[in-house]
Amino acid sequence: MSDRVPVKLKLRGSLWLFSSLNNLNSIFCVFLHLLIVLGDIILTIQKNNMIIPTYNDVLIAHKRIKPYIHQTPVLTSRFLNDLTGAELFFKCENLQRAGAFKARGASNAVFSLTEKEAFSGVATHSSGNHALSLSYAAGQRGIPVTVVMPYTSPQAKKDAVRGYGGTIIECEPSASSRESVFADVLANSGADFVHPYNDPRVIAGQATCSKELLSQVTGLDAIIAPIGGGGMISGTCLTTSNINPKIKVYAAAPLNADDTARSFRAGYIISDDAPETIADGLKMPLRDLTWHFVSNHVENVFTATEDEITNAMKLIWSRMKILIEPSSAVPLATILKNPDVFRGMRLGVIITGGNVDLNKLPWLKNSE
Amino acid sequence: MSDRVPVKLKLRGSLWLFSSLNNLNSIFCVFLHLLIVLGDIILTIQKNNMIIPTYNDVLIAHKRIKPYIHQTPVLTSRFLNDLTGAELFFKCENLQRAGAFKARGASNAVFSLTEKEAFSGVATHSSGNHALSLSYAAGQRGIPVTVVMPYTSPQAKKDAVRGYGGTIIECEPSASSRESVFADVLANSGADFVHPYNDPRVIAGQATCSKELLSQVTGLDAIIAPIGGGGMISGTCLTTSNINPKIKVYAAAPLNADDTARSFRAGYIISDDAPETIADGLKMPLRDLTWHFVSNHVENVFTATEDEITNAMKLIWSRMKILIEPSSAVPLATILKNPDVFRGMRLGVIITGGNVDLNKLPWLKNSE
Repeated sequence: MSDRVPVKLKLRGSLWLFSSLNNLNSIFCVFLHLLIVLGDIILTIQKNNMIIPTYNDVLIAHKRIKPYIHQTPVLTSRFLNDLTGAELFFKCENLQRAGAFKARGASNAVFSLTEKEAFSGVATHSSGNHALSLSYAAGQRGIPVTVVMPYTSPQAKKDAVRGYGGTIIECEPSASSRESVFADVLANSGADFVHPYNDPRVIAGQATCSKELLSQVTGLDAIIAPIGGGGMISGTCLTTSNINPKIKVYAAAPLNADDTARSFRAGYIISDDAPETIADGLKMPLRDLTWHFVSNHVENVFTATEDEITNAMKLIWSRMKILIEPSSAVPLATILKNPDVFRGMRLGVIITGGNVDLNKLPWLKNSE
Repeated sequence: MSDRVPVKLKLRGSLWLFSSLNNLNSIFCVFLHLLIVLGDIILTIQKNNMIIPTYNDVLIAHKRIKPYIHQTPVLTSRFLNDLTGAELFFKCENLQRAGAFKARGASNAVFSLTEKEAFSGVATHSSGNHALSLSYAAGQRGIPVTVVMPYTSPQAKKDAVRGYGGTIIECEPSASSRESVFADVLANSGADFVHPYNDPRVIAGQATCSKELLSQVTGLDAIIAPIGGGGMISGTCLTTSNINPKIKVYAAAPLNADDTARSFRAGYIISDDAPETIADGLKMPLRDLTWHFVSNHVENVFTATEDEITNAMKLIWSRMKILIEPSSAVPLATILKNPDVFRGMRLGVIITGGNVDLNKLPWLKNSE
C-alpha cells in the first residue's frame, strides 16, 4: 500500500492557445497545441506522481531483505557518553554487507522486481556505496547490474564493484557525460534504474535500519544520521513517525556540503554543484521524495567543519575500535559541537558506512 | 576448588651432610644444615605450589566479572571465509572494555580480593594492555592501582592508564630496573601483584572469553588465538578441555617472537630476551602456569612473518571494518599460510585487542 501525493497540473501556454483561435486555419494549430498540452500534463503527472513509501512497505521490505542483510550490532562507549553527556547508541551499518546501510535499499529494490523485470537487470550511476550495494544485491539475485562511473574513480572502488559481479561503464567525470552514457545504458539494456535515494523502494529499505535500532534499544529520545541526498534520513523519519512520533530526527551535514541545511531553513530544495568535502557520501542534493520527509519530519539539520569531522572520525576509531568512513563521523561531530541540544538524551546515532581508503586517512597528511 | 600439582623436593647437599658427622663439634653444623635444607624445601614447595585454575574457577569468574565486561560480539566475513576455505568466527575482544580481553583476567583478580586485601590495592609491571585493564578494573572497584612502566613508554599509553585512575611509577627501560622499582612498590604499598598471565585468577578470567564464544557459536572444530605469555591460550585450553575436548586449540605467534613455538617443539620453556615484532602484545615468554596448559592441550603453534601479520591486519581492517592491533592479526596470518590445516573447519578466531596507534600504521611507512 502506498500513498500518492496530489497531482499538480501545469497548463503551460493555455492563454496563448485561446487568444490564437481567430481563424479556421488555426484548427490544425489548435490540435497540435492540445497535443503539446496533453504531453505536458502527462509529463507533469509522471514527475509529480511521487510514490511515498508507507510503514507497511518497510515491514514488507524487512521481510524481503532479511536473508541478504546483517542485523547490525548497536555499540556504546562510556568514554563518548561522558564526553557528550548523552547516552549514545551507535547503530553500526559499517558492519553491514558491502560495508554500508545502502545494502538495505538496494536489496529491497532488486528483490521487489518481478521475474520479467529482473531479467533485464538493474543499473545505476554512482561511484560510492550505492554502486557497491546494488552490485552486491544483484549478485545475490543473480541478475545483471551495470554501473556508470567516471573513469577517474579509485581503482579500489572499481575492483569492489567487479568483485560483486557488476559491469562498469566508464564515463567522463562530468554530469553531462554521466547522464548521456547512463541514458544509453538504460535504452540498450532495458535495465531497471535504481536511484541511490530518490526511490520509494530504496527509502523503504533504508528505513529497516532504524526499525531494527528501535527494537534493539528502548526509550530513545532521538536519532541522528548523516544527510546527503537524504535516503537514510527519510527512512528514519518514516520509521519514527510510524512507531513513535515523539522520537526526534536530527540530520548532520558537512558544512562544505550544507545545501540540505540551507534547504531546511529556506523551505525549498537548494542544491549545490559538486561540493568538496571529505565526507564523500554526502555530496548529493535532496530530491523531491527525500525533501518530503526532511521538510515534514526532521527536527533540525546541524553542520560540522572538515576538521571537526576528522576529529570525530578519529575519536570513534580510537575509542570504539571500528572503522567508519568520514560521512559516518558527521553526527558525532555535530553532537560535540551542540552539547546543549543533546545532553541527557538517549540518542541513536547511525554509523552509515565503513568504506574508507586505508592508505589515505584524513589525519595523516603524508600517508602512502 | 583448585588442583595442586605434586610437590618436588630437592634435598640439596644431603650427601655432604652425612659425610660430615665425624665429631661432636659438627652437631651445630648439622643443625645449621638441617635448617638450610628445611628452608630449601619450603622455597621449593612455594615455587612449585602452582595453583592451576579449574573450570569451576571459570564459572565463578564469569559470574564475578559480568558487570564489568562486555559480552563481545562474534563477527563473520564471507570474503575471508571464501579466501581461507574455512568458516571463521571472530570473537571481538577489541570491542572489550579497555580495548582488550585482558579486562577479563584483571577484573577477576581485582574482584576476587577480600576487602582487607583490596584496601592496599593492586600493582603490576606492564606497558601494554594488562596495565590498562588492571587500571580499569581497579577503578571499577575503587581501589589504588600502581603500574611500573619504562619512562620511554608512549605518552598515549601513560595517558590511558592515568585516564582509568592508575598511578604510574616510571623505571629505566631495562628488566633489572623494572624489577627493583617494582619490588619497592610492592614493599611500600603492600599491594597485590597481579601478573599479566602467570596467575590462576587471570587465566580463569581470560577463559570466560572462549566460554562465551562456545555459547555464541555451536559446532566449532577448533579455536585459534595469538600466543605470547600464554594467558589467553591457557584460558582457551581450560574451557575447551572441560566443555568439549574434541575442540582443538591452535596458537599463533610472530616468527620474530617464536620462543613459544620452539618451546612447544622442544618440550620445555625457551624464553627469548626482548624479541622485536610489530605484534607488541606477544613479546613475553611462557611461564610455568601457562606452560602447563600449552604443553598439555595445544594442538600446534604456527608462526607468521611481520609482512604476513601486516597484510592480515589490513585485510581485517578493510574487510571487517574493525580496528585490531597487530597481535590480533597473527591467527589470520597463520590460517592464510596453512590453508590445508584449516580448510573446511568451523574455526573460532580470538581477536585479542584493538589498542593501536592511529598515527603509526604498519602499512604506512611514512605516517605522521
